[in-house]
Amino acid sequence: MTVRGRFITLEGGEGAGKSTLIAGLREHLLRHGITPVLAREPGGTALGEAVRAIVLDPALRGMCAESELLLMFAARAQLVRESIGPALAAGQWVLCDRFVDASYAYQGGGRGQPYERIAQLEAWTCNGLVPDLTLLLDLPVAAGRVRAAGRGASDRIEGEADAFFERVRAAYAARAAAEPARFRRLDAGRPAEEVLAAATRALEPLLREAGR
Amino acid sequence: MTVRGRFITLEGGEGAGKSTLIAGLREHLLRHGITPVLAREPGGTALGEAVRAIVLDPALRGMCAESELLLMFAARAQLVRESIGPALAAGQWVLCDRFVDASYAYQGGGRGQPYERIAQLEAWTCNGLVPDLTLLLDLPVAAGRVRAAGRGASDRIEGEADAFFERVRAAYAARAAAEPARFRRLDAGRPAEEVLAAATRALEPLLREAGR
Ligand SMILES: Nc1ncnc2c1ncn2[C@@H]1O[C@H](COP(=O)(O)OP(=O)(O)OP(=O)(O)O)[C@@H](O)[C@H]1O
Ligand SMILES: Nc1ncnc2c1ncn2[C@@H]1O[C@H](COP(=O)(O)OP(=O)(O)OP(=O)(O)O)[C@@H](O)[C@H]1O
Ligand SMILES: [Mg+2]
Ligand SMILES: [Mg+2]
Repeated sequence: MTVRGRFITLEGGEGAGKSTLIAGLREHLLRHGITPVLAREPGGTALGEAVRAIVLDPALRGMCAESELLLMFAARAQLVRESIGPALAAGQWVLCDRFVDASYAYQGGGRGQPYERIAQLEAWTCNGLVPDLTLLLDLPVAAGRVRAAGRGASDRIEGEADAFFERVRAAYAARAAAEPARFRRLDAGRPAEEVLAAATRALEPLLREAGR
Repeated sequence: MTVRGRFITLEGGEGAGKSTLIAGLREHLLRHGITPVLAREPGGTALGEAVRAIVLDPALRGMCAESELLLMFAARAQLVRESIGPALAAGQWVLCDRFVDASYAYQGGGRGQPYERIAQLEAWTCNGLVPDLTLLLDLPVAAGRVRAAGRGASDRIEGEADAFFERVRAAYAARAAAEPARFRRLDAGRPAEEVLAAATRALEPLLREAGR
């Protein structure tokens, strides 16, 4: 009998260090004999990457909040069915750069889409899948901007005002507070090695449970 | 005070003659001094056309029904906000090649997505907008295939089996039966001039009301 794998998500604002941390966690899991499946949102499938290109396209500045929300869940539904669901069912570990919490934070907190609507979409598309652990990389908005700026032209969402990202950050904090057992908040303002060390500590119970 | 314009939708299976009819209706309205706004689904906005390319891409054969449904409504939400809603509010007439009924027929009847889910999405995205008149071009599946085949390579949805299109046709028929005041079923197997003549007769009450 295959045991279900573990599902770990990384959340946080722009430039908080998710991509950096996911690379470090991958190395860490490899050292424990686990080859994780990596995924990112929106994206992670052919459909999802096509949707990502639309969602981030700076030319589509007039996109309404409803469309943005539905596009995110269209990509997510496919990712759950095609990638995350099968991987977990086969006993694999999945590291995912953003998941449903990002919709509560960005489309909910940021754009004002009702949380009940997001919960309904989650119920329709996620097959009951909930992360075993969510690492929230928390960083003041200004600091995230400085880091993200290093990467060149900003996409449609990065182009939002600070007030938008303050709402996103607050919505993430509220979700973490509401589900303390699932969330681990990490101070993303610390050096990358320290963030990684804190994240690997948060993984210890999962590795122990899995006998690694 | 501007009166709200009229909203007329065309529905029906592949190759039923919607594009042909919309061109004829446009001429007819022009002769009555009305320059209609034309729209099509999915599409009709920059966002919608990008979504259309995804939805019809034959390479995305594995697209799940949930994603397809959400993509359709993502395009529709933008079309309502950016095009149909403002046009009607400004007193313009809108001729739209497919609208919400197509989701009930294709994603509901065809793909088995629950009708309540579609109704919920409609409530979230359509601002209460309901067509004043819906022309349903009804045609046996085999006849539609012959007509559509004349246009070359088939898209992802045209590639479905006959059983799919039979369910679509039945779902359209059920919607027309449930809302007889809004729907006018046209026998799309008749010559194009006859279909157009029947459609212009269906428009008479709207033109009379509008004093045209
Ligand atoms: N803890 C850290 N301290 C300082 N700089 C960091 C830290 N973590 C990442 N960075 C740097 O900040 C920038 C953004 O990091 P990264 O791309 O990992 O963020 P991200 O959360 O994935 O951003 P996005 O949401 O835009 O994908 C990179 O240049 C990265 O090297
Ligand atoms: N009443 C008709 N009788 C015979 N042929 C017709 C009739 N109406 C349209 N056609 C022809 O059938 C083909 C399909 O018509 P059209 O493109 O208008 O259909 P459609 O409903 O818009 O299709 P689609 O759903 O694929 O956009 C065209 O070649 C058109 O000239
Ligand atoms: Mg990143
Ligand atoms: Mg057409």
